[in-house]
Amino acid sequence: MEITVAECCERLREMDDIVILCHRNPDGDTLGSGFALHYILKQLGKRSRVECHDGFPKQYSYMFRDYAPEEFEPKAVVAVDIADEQLFGDGLEKYCGRVDLCIDHHGSNKHYAKDWIVRETAAATAEVMEDICYGFEEVTLTKEIADCIYTGVSTDTGCFRYSNTTGHSHAVAGRMFKAGCDFAMINRVMFELKSLSRIAIEKEVLNTVEYHFNKRCALVYITSDMMERTGALDSELEGVAAMPREIEGVEVGITLRQRDNGFKISLRTGDEVDASVLCGRLGGGGHRCAAGCFVPGDLETAKAAILEAVKEAFNDGEDDQ
Amino acid sequence: MEITVAECCERLREMDDIVILCHRNPDGDTLGSGFALHYILKQLGKRSRVECHDGFPKQYSYMFRDYAPEEFEPKAVVAVDIADEQLFGDGLEKYCGRVDLCIDHHGSNKHYAKDWIVRETAAATAEVMEDICYGFEEVTLTKEIADCIYTGVSTDTGCFRYSNTTGHSHAVAGRMFKAGCDFAMINRVMFELKSLSRIAIEKEVLNTVEYHFNKRCALVYITSDMMERTGALDSELEGVAAMPREIEGVEVGITLRQRDNGFKISLRTGDEVDASVLCGRLGGGGHRCAAGCFVPGDLETAKAAILEAVKEAFNDGEDDQ
Repeated sequence: MEITVAECCERLREMDDIVILCHRNPDGDTLGSGFALHYILKQLGKRSRVECHDGFPKQYSYMFRDYAPEEFEPKAVVAVDIADEQLFGDGLEKYCGRVDLCIDHHGSNKHYAKDWIVRETAAATAEVMEDICYGFEEVTLTKEIADCIYTGVSTDTGCFRYSNTTGHSHAVAGRMFKAGCDFAMINRVMFELKSLSRIAIEKEVLNTVEYHFNKRCALVYITSDMMERTGALDSELEGVAAMPREIEGVEVGITLRQRDNGFKISLRTGDEVDASVLCGRLGGGGHRCAAGCFVPGDLETAKAAILEAVKEAFNDGEDDQ
Repeated sequence: MEITVAECCERLREMDDIVILCHRNPDGDTLGSGFALHYILKQLGKRSRVECHDGFPKQYSYMFRDYAPEEFEPKAVVAVDIADEQLFGDGLEKYCGRVDLCIDHHGSNKHYAKDWIVRETAAATAEVMEDICYGFEEVTLTKEIADCIYTGVSTDTGCFRYSNTTGHSHAVAGRMFKAGCDFAMINRVMFELKSLSRIAIEKEVLNTVEYHFNKRCALVYITSDMMERTGALDSELEGVAAMPREIEGVEVGITLRQRDNGFKISLRTGDEVDASVLCGRLGGGGHRCAAGCFVPGDLETAKAAILEAVKEAFNDGEDDQ
C-alpha cells in the first residue's frame, strides 16, 4: 500500500539485514538513492547491502569508495528507483514478489512491493531519499550521503537542464552543497569526461552529418562497423545520437542506427513537424517530438525511406541534396 | 563608495532616464542582469535603456522580445557585471568616468563608479539583481525578470557545473522556477543548440585528435584554414578547445590555435603535471592546471616544442607515437 515518508521511516526502523535493489543498467539515480539509503541505515546501526544485476560502473566509484558489502541472509528487501520487477535483471530475479518497500518517482510504477512511496512530481528518487534522511532525527546528512543524493538529482535532470527539473530539485541541490557535496568532481565525472571510444564514435558520427531540405533537416548514421571499429558501447551513444536536433535551424533530426538486417531510425522534431505521424508511415510510432521506426535493408534504403517521409511533411518541394 | 542592497535601491529610486551598461562581448550574465534591472525600473515607472558596444546577440532575444529602446538624454548611468571601464568597448567610451552605480560580482572590480555593490561570493551578478528586485516592495518578480536572472546564473555557472556554483546559486534558480522562468527553453538555447559552423569546426577538430605518452596526453589543433573553411567564430571555440582534457585518462590536454606567424598553445592538466611550469619553459605561463604559451613557426614546430616539454614532465621515457 502507499505510505508516507514518516511511515516509510517507521518501516525501515523495524527492518534489519536489508538488501537494497538497484535497477539493471544502473544510472546515477538508482545508485545514488541506493547508497544514500545504505549510509542512512548504517547510521541507524543496521546492516544493509546494495545489489545490482550489472554491478556498479566505475565512474560512480566515489559513492562506494569505502563500501564493503557484508554477507548476510536478507530479512528485508527495499527497491529504489525501480518501476517494475522486470527491471531487476536476471541476477536479482530471486527477489521478485519479495520486495517489502519500494521508493520511486516513476508514474509507471507497478506497485509490486508490499509498501511503496512513488512521488511522481520528483525529478529523481534521490529527492525522496532526502526526505527519508530528514525523517530520522538521529541521522546526519553527511558529505557521503550528499554526494549520493546530488548525483541522483543532477544525473536524472541532465544537470538541471531537462524539463523534468523543478524548483524543488534546485532546492535539494542547494542543501547538498551546504552538506559539502563534491559537486565539481561529480559534474566533471558525469557530464564532462568522455571515454576514448566515445570520442572516437563522436568523430565518426560527426563525419556522417548531412543536411537536407535547406538545412531544416540533419541526418547522421551509426553502422555496426563504426561501433566495432571504435569499441563504443550503446550506453555511450546517448548524447551523440541526439546531436542532429541540437543544430541551429534544424526542425527534423534523424539518427539511423544499424541493427540486424536493417536500420532503427530515431526522429526528433521541433514544433512544426509531428514525428509520430512521419514514423507512423513507416510502421513505427512515438510522440509528437520524438518517435522511431525500423526500416529493413541497407543504409541507402533506410535513408531514402525516411527522407521521403520528411519531404512530405515539409510539403514544399524537392530536397536540395 | 561601497553600498548595501538597501542603499542601492534608494539610489535607484532617486534616478530617472537611466542608461544600463553591459560589457562588450556580452554574455548571459551581463545581459540578464541588465534586462532584469530594466524590467524592475519599468515597474517603478522609470525610463531606462540597455546599451552594449556589441549589441544583443540573437540567442538572447527571449529576454528583449518586447523591448523597444527609448530615446532620451541619460540622467544616470548604471553598469552591470562590468569590472573595468575598459570593458565598455569603444562605442560606450563616452560613459567612462560617468557611472553612478556599478552592480557586479568580480573580485577584480576597479571601483570606477561613484557607488558600487561588488559581491565576490556570488557566482553571477544576476544573484545580486535578485536581491535588488526584492528590495523594492512594490516590484513583482515577474516571469520576464525570472528568465533574465535565471539566464545570468545558469550561464555564469555553466548550468551549475562549474566550481563557482554555490548552494545560493541553486536557491536562486529554485526561486526563478517558482516565478515561472522558461528554464527548458533557455537551457536548450544556451547549452544545446549549436550553429552549423560550430558543428563543422567540431568535426574538423575531432579529426585532429592525437594521443601521446600512452594516451595520458591528447592534442588537437585549429588552423586558420579550418576557421575560414567552417566560418566558425572564436566565440564558438570555447567548448571545442577544452575537449582534450575531457577525455578519460588524459592528464595533459593540448590545444594549438594558429595565429599570425605561429601557434598559441593552451595546456590543461590534472593533478600530476604543473601546466605553468611546462608553458614557462616555452616563455609562457599561467596556473597549475591551465596555462598557455606561444610558439612561432608552423604546426610541426609548435607540436614538437610542446610535446618535448610534456615529455620531460612525464619523465619516463619516449613518446609512443
